[in-house]
Amino acid sequence: MISQLIQKIQKTKAPICIGLDPMLGYIPEHILKKSFGEFGETLEGAADAIWQFNKEIIDHTYDLVPSVKPQIAMYEQFGIEGLKVYVKTVEYCHSKGLLVIGDAKRGDIGSTSAAYATAHIGSVKVGSSVCKAFNTDFLTVNPYLGTDGVKPFVDVCKAEDKGLFVLVKTSNPSSGEFQDQKIDGRPLYELVADKVMEWGADCMDGDYSNVGAVVGATYPEMSGILRKLMPHTYFLVPGYGAQGGTAADLKPCFNEDGLGAVVNSSRGIIAAYKQDKYAKFGPEHFTEASRQAVADMAADINSVL
Amino acid sequence: MISQLIQKIQKTKAPICIGLDPMLGYIPEHILKKSFGEFGETLEGAADAIWQFNKEIIDHTYDLVPSVKPQIAMYEQFGIEGLKVYVKTVEYCHSKGLLVIGDAKRGDIGSTSAAYATAHIGSVKVGSSVCKAFNTDFLTVNPYLGTDGVKPFVDVCKAEDKGLFVLVKTSNPSSGEFQDQKIDGRPLYELVADKVMEWGADCMDGDYSNVGAVVGATYPEMSGILRKLMPHTYFLVPGYGAQGGTAADLKPCFNEDGLGAVVNSSRGIIAAYKQDKYAKFGPEHFTEASRQAVADMAADINSVL
Repeated sequence: MISQLIQKIQKTKAPICIGLDPMLGYIPEHILKKSFGEFGETLEGAADAIWQFNKEIIDHTYDLVPSVKPQIAMYEQFGIEGLKVYVKTVEYCHSKGLLVIGDAKRGDIGSTSAAYATAHIGSVKVGSSVCKAFNTDFLTVNPYLGTDGVKPFVDVCKAEDKGLFVLVKTSNPSSGEFQDQKIDGRPLYELVADKVMEWGADCMDGDYSNVGAVVGATYPEMSGILRKLMPHTYFLVPGYGAQGGTAADLKPCFNEDGLGAVVNSSRGIIAAYKQDKYAKFGPEHFTEASRQAVADMAADINSVL
Repeated sequence: MISQLIQKIQKTKAPICIGLDPMLGYIPEHILKKSFGEFGETLEGAADAIWQFNKEIIDHTYDLVPSVKPQIAMYEQFGIEGLKVYVKTVEYCHSKGLLVIGDAKRGDIGSTSAAYATAHIGSVKVGSSVCKAFNTDFLTVNPYLGTDGVKPFVDVCKAEDKGLFVLVKTSNPSSGEFQDQKIDGRPLYELVADKVMEWGADCMDGDYSNVGAVVGATYPEMSGILRKLMPHTYFLVPGYGAQGGTAADLKPCFNEDGLGAVVNSSRGIIAAYKQDKYAKFGPEHFTEASRQAVADMAADINSVL
C-alpha cells in the first residue's frame, strides 16, 4: 500500500494529504442554508452539509493530490448520520483515485484492536459472506497499550495490503507531557519508534514499510532525529499551516531522496477561503480558494526539498 | 455522574459493569439463524443478531447491576448498521435505568478531542438546535497526547455532569511495554495517574471525581499502589474472569470502605453459557447462564471486600 502512495506522490509532485475535517464553522453559508432548508437543523441537516462541502472540495482538488485524511471524530460528532457521510466520502475519494487515510487513532487490547482493524481496513465474516465496513487504505493507531494492541492492525495490513500510521510524536502543544519523558536517557517517543520499526519489519513494500509513523511538523528537531532513526518508515506529518508548522519545519521529515513523508493540512486547505490570503475568492468560490491553497502548499514544500 | 454510579452500586451490592461486547461467535445459533434468515448474511443481519442478543442479556440482568460497558469496536466492525445497534443499545440500557460506560478509548489533539467529547458524552450545535449523537454517561479516554488532548473531555464532563475513565494501567499482556517504563524511578503509569488526578481535581462529585482511571485487574500489585496514590479516583477495572484476574486480584482496586472500583466482565457474562460451569443452561437459555454468572461474580467480589 505504501508503494501506491509513493507512486501517487511522485505523479502529483505533492506529498500532501488533504485533511477532510469538516467543522460546520468552515462551511459556507449557502451550503448550510440549502442543507438545513432540506433536512432542518438536525444531525441529517449537518451531515448533508458536510457531505456537500466535502464533495465540492474533492471535485476541485482530486487531480492535485495523492491522498486525503478524513478525521473520523468530525463525522462521529453527528452520530450515525455523520458516519454515513464518512463512508460516502471514503467511497467518493476512491472513485476519484485518491488514497484514503482514516484518521481514527484506534487502539485497545488485542481482541478489541482486531475488531477495529476489521472495521477500518479489513473485512468481517458474517456467516459465509465477507463484508467491509469503513474500507480506508490506511489507519492511524495509538500505541499506548503496546505490541498486543497494535499487532492485530499489522496482521490486517499484511493480509489485505493496507497501511498504518502509529502515533510516535504528535503535533499538539502538550504532546511532550508523556511522549518526551526520558527513559534511560531516551524519550518515550523513541522507544515507540523502535517498536514501530519492529512491527513494520515484515511489512515492507518496496523501500518503505506499510507500518508508518505520525510525526508532528511542530517539533522539527525531534522529527529530524526520528527521520534518521527510522529510514524505512513513512511519516504522516500533521501540524503544517494552521497548527504552526512551516515548510522549513517539514524538511527534517523527509529523506535525502525527497520521499519519506506525507504532510497533512486540514483547515489550511478546506477553509482556505476564510484566510486573508484567499479572501478574494469569497465563500461562493471556496473550492477555488482550496485549489489555490493546495497548489501553494505543494510549491511551499517543494521549495525546501 | 460518579455519585449516581456509586448509589447504584450500593443499591445492587454489585460493583460490576457488564461488557456488552457481542462477537458473532458468542451469539447462540437460534438468534443468528433468525437474523440471517430475515436480513441475509450481511452487515444488517449481523447487526440484528447483536441487537437481539444484547436485548436478551439486558432484559435478564438489568436489575442486578448498576452499569454496562459496550465496547464500540464490536459495533464499528459492522459499520453503520453496527453503530445503529450501539445507539439502540445505549438507549435501551438507559430505559432500564442502567448507566452506560462507552468504551471507545478516544483521544486526539484538542480540537479533535472536542469533537469526540461532543459525539460521545456531549451535545453538538446544529444551527440553533442542540443534538446528541451517542449519549453515553461515561467514556474511556486515551492519554497519550497529554493534557490538551484530554481537557476537552473534562470540559464536557463539567458542563453536562458526565464521567471519564482515562487509561492508566491497562489489563493486556503487553501493557507494560510503555506504561511500566521508569521515568526518574517512577513508572509512566504513575505519571499518567498524577495527571488524571490533576484533570479531575475540579470535577469532584462527592468523595470521588468524575474523572476516573482504567486500571487492569491483572496487575494487582500495581493497582494497590495506584489505589493509595489516587484515593478520590474511581477505577474502571477490566481483566476479571476471561482475561485471568481473580477476586483476590481485585481487592487492591478497592478502598477500605468497599468503594472505588467498578469491575467489568464481558465474555464471562455474555457468553457464560459457553463455559463448562454454566453449560447446563444450554444455548437456548443463555440469558439464565448470564444471570447466574452475574450473581456469581457479585458474590465472588463481595467475598473479598
